[in-house]
Amino acid sequence: PCNLTGWWENDLGSRMHVLEVDGEGNFSGEYHTAVSSADKPIQPSPFVGSQHLDEDGQCTFGFTVNWKKFSDSTAVFVGQCFAGDKGDEVLQTSWLLREKVDSLHSDWKATR
Amino acid sequence: PCNLTGWWENDLGSRMHVLEVDGEGNFSGEYHTAVSSADKPIQPSPFVGSQHLDEDGQCTFGFTVNWKKFSDSTAVFVGQCFAGDKGDEVLQTSWLLREKVDSLHSDWKATR
Amino acid sequence: PCNLTGWWENDLGSRMHVLEVDGEGNFSGEYHTAVSSADKPIQPSPFVGSQHLDEDGQCTFGFTVNWKKFSDSTAVFVGQCFAGDKGDEVLQTSWLLREKVDSLHSDWKATR
Amino acid sequence: PCNLTGWWENDLGSRMHVLEVDGEGNFSGEYHTAVSSADKPIQPSPFVGSQHLDEDGQCTFGFTVNWKKFSDSTAVFVGQCFAGDKGDEVLQTSWLLREKVDSLHSDWKATR
Repeated sequence: PCNLTGWWENDLGSRMHVLEVDGEGNFSGEYHTAVSSADKPIQPSPFVGSQHLDEDGQCTFGFTVNWKKFSDSTAVFVGQCFAGDKGDEVLQTSWLLREKVDSLHSDWKATR
Repeated sequence: PCNLTGWWENDLGSRMHVLEVDGEGNFSGEYHTAVSSADKPIQPSPFVGSQHLDEDGQCTFGFTVNWKKFSDSTAVFVGQCFAGDKGDEVLQTSWLLREKVDSLHSDWKATR
Repeated sequence: PCNLTGWWENDLGSRMHVLEVDGEGNFSGEYHTAVSSADKPIQPSPFVGSQHLDEDGQCTFGFTVNWKKFSDSTAVFVGQCFAGDKGDEVLQTSWLLREKVDSLHSDWKATR
Repeated sequence: PCNLTGWWENDLGSRMHVLEVDGEGNFSGEYHTAVSSADKPIQPSPFVGSQHLDEDGQCTFGFTVNWKKFSDSTAVFVGQCFAGDKGDEVLQTSWLLREKVDSLHSDWKATR
């Protein structure tokens, strides 16, 4: 079955390290982003998430990255595991990045 | 400061119960969705997430709901806390729902 | 059937004026946005779009707003027409706003 | 400057033919999608859109595809033109697909 434990890297060069996945499918880890819209220097950032434990190895999963070490933003990722061409595993993900805004009036532009 | 602990309800009638938020901003809880695209009956579903702990009460946050009790999908929510008109707190959120697909060829339609 | 011709206003106070819808479902008009992430003053902006012409009045539609008069961004809206509580018509829409970025390296953050 | 006129192909194998772009940046054309969530057979589908006419060739643009020939859905695309590695042009786009739903109660799941 698909198990997210380990290191993953995406097309932008961001890397994430997923620690042990528990019996419920919950996990935590550290995200090393290669890109940022924040002013402060990037730092490795903690995340928590959850995955399905389907036998077929094509589980869906999601996680939340808290950028508190250099930003007041939060990102969420959701995706699915697939078998790659060479017997490896590939994660397909989509994400949303929430930036902090001053008021409800600016809420419309807070998420990308 | 904004603390997500407690019960929240959205416009669709979905309700979520956030248990204690720890010192790192991590939390877990149970999501009672009012809507579903799955065939099986809806069941309360576990989530894990993380929030900022800003003093101004306008923290951003995110969480992952694992629908494993009745579906092979996963949802992520990201948002921000605001003070409401009547001294109450309002959460503004966006979400992505990942449905499991058979192959990479169907990946384009897996997320809504 | 649903016909988008006329004036519409959204929750943020933005207003749009849809001119005549032609036999193919194509239309154009002018969008008066109430909110902006641009530096220059807001100006009414042209849009072009297309709608279905279903008999049941619940057609889907989409349109593109070109903000060239005060910005180098482009927005797209997609949605569906519904009958409101009082016999009126309501449009439910989602949107994406594309901001111009310098290079492919910044592409990840260009859309919200 | 970037001019969308011509044929474009994406990673999924979908192809689009943009006819002449007018002096306002408006254009129309035909989209040949390689993928579909509809039951009926795919057919080439008309679109209308608009682009900026910036001198630097990195213009943003958007367009609406009306799938009326085999579906009651509508899609919108928004993106930006970039110079590719080999002097060619690359379009980076994001999209939303609106499927028709029966009632406002199902609106939450209508867009992907």
